Amino acid sequence: MKATILNIGDELLIGQVVNTNASRMAQMLTQAGIDVCGTYVIGDNAEDINYYLRHCLERSEAVLMTGGLGPTKDDITKRCLCEFFGSELYENREALANVRRIFEARGYELTPINRQQAWVPRCCTVINNVLGTAPCMWFSCGMENGEWRMENHPGAAANSQLSTLNSQLSTPNSQLNEESNSQFSTPNSQFKKVVVSMPGVPFEMVNLMETEVVPRLQKYFRTDQIINKNILVQGIGESFLSDLIEPWETTLPATIRLAYLPQAGMVKLRLTARGSHDQRPLLEQQIADAVERLYPLAGQYIVGEDLESLPELVAYTFKKHHLTLATAESCTGGALAAQLTIMSGASEYYRGGVVSYCNEVKESALGVRHDTLETYDAVSEETVSEMAIGVRTRLGADYGVATTGVAGPSGGTPERPVGTVWIGIAGPEGQLVTKLLHFGDRRAQTIERTTHAVWAELIKLVKSTHKE
Amino acid sequence: MKATILNIGDELLIGQVVNTNASRMAQMLTQAGIDVCGTYVIGDNAEDINYYLRHCLERSEAVLMTGGLGPTKDDITKRCLCEFFGSELYENREALANVRRIFEARGYELTPINRQQAWVPRCCTVINNVLGTAPCMWFSCGMENGEWRMENHPGAAANSQLSTLNSQLSTPNSQLNEESNSQFSTPNSQFKKVVVSMPGVPFEMVNLMETEVVPRLQKYFRTDQIINKNILVQGIGESFLSDLIEPWETTLPATIRLAYLPQAGMVKLRLTARGSHDQRPLLEQQIADAVERLYPLAGQYIVGEDLESLPELVAYTFKKHHLTLATAESCTGGALAAQLTIMSGASEYYRGGVVSYCNEVKESALGVRHDTLETYDAVSEETVSEMAIGVRTRLGADYGVATTGVAGPSGGTPERPVGTVWIGIAGPEGQLVTKLLHFGDRRAQTIERTTHAVWAELIKLVKSTHKE
Repeated sequence: MKATILNIGDELLIGQVVNTNASRMAQMLTQAGIDVCGTYVIGDNAEDINYYLRHCLERSEAVLMTGGLGPTKDDITKRCLCEFFGSELYENREALANVRRIFEARGYELTPINRQQAWVPRCCTVINNVLGTAPCMWFSCGMENGEWRMENHPGAAANSQLSTLNSQLSTPNSQLNEESNSQFSTPNSQFKKVVVSMPGVPFEMVNLMETEVVPRLQKYFRTDQIINKNILVQGIGESFLSDLIEPWETTLPATIRLAYLPQAGMVKLRLTARGSHDQRPLLEQQIADAVERLYPLAGQYIVGEDLESLPELVAYTFKKHHLTLATAESCTGGALAAQLTIMSGASEYYRGGVVSYCNEVKESALGVRHDTLETYDAVSEETVSEMAIGVRTRLGADYGVATTGVAGPSGGTPERPVGTVWIGIAGPEGQLVTKLLHFGDRRAQTIERTTHAVWAELIKLVKSTHKE
Repeated sequence: MKATILNIGDELLIGQVVNTNASRMAQMLTQAGIDVCGTYVIGDNAEDINYYLRHCLERSEAVLMTGGLGPTKDDITKRCLCEFFGSELYENREALANVRRIFEARGYELTPINRQQAWVPRCCTVINNVLGTAPCMWFSCGMENGEWRMENHPGAAANSQLSTLNSQLSTPNSQLNEESNSQFSTPNSQFKKVVVSMPGVPFEMVNLMETEVVPRLQKYFRTDQIINKNILVQGIGESFLSDLIEPWETTLPATIRLAYLPQAGMVKLRLTARGSHDQRPLLEQQIADAVERLYPLAGQYIVGEDLESLPELVAYTFKKHHLTLATAESCTGGALAAQLTIMSGASEYYRGGVVSYCNEVKESALGVRHDTLETYDAVSEETVSEMAIGVRTRLGADYGVATTGVAGPSGGTPERPVGTVWIGIAGPEGQLVTKLLHFGDRRAQTIERTTHAVWAELIKLVKSTHKE
């Protein structure tokens, strides 16, 4: 079963907004066992919307659209869907109740133009969008006399039936009632395709996809079960890892696929098992067995399971061992701190940090000696060592990490060119690790790669100090 | 003249990588007066590449492709382009020299598989990619007997001529030599379309687009001149601003278009003038006149010109007035510091900051009184005031800003629910501004919006203190 993604919006087309929706949607579909065969961005243009609706329906079973659902003139997706399916707009009772609820909660008056948010094509099924005023719309359709038509629907007379369905559907975690509406059962031979139109606001789309659209698609198309397992590997390059685990890889059952996903400072191994619903227990067992058999070969490089990034791994490791951390940042300028604190629960292990962007702050807030800065320079092994030790001591943490360098593009000298970075890590037993790194003159990249290096070295030190 | 963007790569299709290339390319094309009419993401799949090359050529004059140019098996773009245009691969001398140069600089041996990076379809024109090993390829083409064909090219015999051209082209800022190759002159009636294939590595693509591809497209298609002028407006909502400047807007010349681009904490007004090359001086004058006439109406809300974001505006303002800044962050956890230091030149005005993620650090590093934390709580006007004053004094800055709040999703109480945030700003003349904010339970959004509020209040205070 294949899906296409159709993102509508001039702001996407001209590049004013990065299309994060496409990647989020693709991730969710892929994880649900639905293959994405194409993603399309088009403008708020009736001709193009009509053309690509047809195009996508010809190439896939499910077309997932976002955008063009606002109350302003240039939002034309609903009108286009009406024309495409030969339908008309009507005011949907549940959609109106939702719009009312949201306006009341915000203390705004419901104007006629906002009320239009509750108008939908007559024969679609409305999926309630609890986070916003634009409703999500589901169309089951098929080809009839060379035209795409929606599944035959009782129309206006069914409004009350639809309402019943909608009120059931809008209850979180409600079981889908198959009897009440054929649109959520498996398609018959003629009406076997689905178009879903969602708002383009990212968090509304994500919530709708997660709680409603993806589960319905899985049910409607009886998609395969997909079980994923991530294993984070660190301290070994992709090709060496591949050689090391080849004997294991060749014995994986045919139901399991292995992917190498090289990431910042590490490699993520992803095991994916795919099969029918009944096979789920078997697949889970196969994955568990495979992981167990991987440890004897590569256990020394495995740093975590089911984690996505190095900062997540830091958080996991520090919480597990009940350790605390402090950061002293010069060239990374707060990026280390921000990477940790964007994750909830950071206060369990992160005590805080100092961004010492001038020498005086290195001295006053971290206790770096004036002599050290004078004699060895701010970008030196001596300075980064005193920063790491200073922040650890002053902020009362088990571990202290520090960075100092020339992020560039200006500020380089012949002895200390742009991209020169020192990192340092101070531990509770007097351990001190320092490392000199050389990057190029791309500032953002230097900052990012420095953070990867710090996390990698920190995890290495913590793991060697606090054995399982 | 219209362009389409065709991004190739399984990693994009499954959402593993966010497609930032599409938005960057679209921005650059739009700014250059080239309209983007569609963006397509497809997998590394020969049938799809062939299909969408044809599709894009039918819908636009220029097709800008990225991806699939690596040396591994699954990178098939070059092979597909050969098949599509009925051409064959050959080893291009300049491309090989570039690959060699890059491998030597990195100290790696050039293996046969890496050498394949220098193989390109015989009749394309190679544009040197100074930042990477995958060459950029330019195809001028047209429809011939129902098939897309490249512009008739002398083939192998022209290799030396091509080489000459390439060595000229690879010189930065070299003038394009129109005599030397017809591919860069205006198209004749038959071969009037262009396909450009670029590597998918973002910084390589951006550099190629900026320095080579966009200028060539502008020349080839004699595109209109586009002059943009951004004006940042703050402290007034979009609809109020629209009412305020309506008398001005109605008198704008027909060559100038106005766009409202609401952004984090402000509105960006973009004036765009469009006309032929000869009109450039006139357009520039019209833009300058329009900006001058805007000030009497909305000057009090205009905070800057030709800036893109609030942190940029902070940097601009602090540098202009030779002021310094320090940050004390609890709930934003380093985000304020990171937003400033990602921009080069931050050390000119930013002294540093403290991320005080626990109460002890608020006391020891910022001088917040223990009593204050006990009596009023860490999330309170009293605490944020002492943080702002403390960081200003201890780090020796003219201004100090501070944040403390419950970013969530956990940690809320009935009196202090998730999303409660206090911000504070301390100035050099004893000024102290505090503000209570309420956000929802989306952590990343709360952090981001808090930073906007801090920058907005800071700019307001600085502007009222240091008049022009």
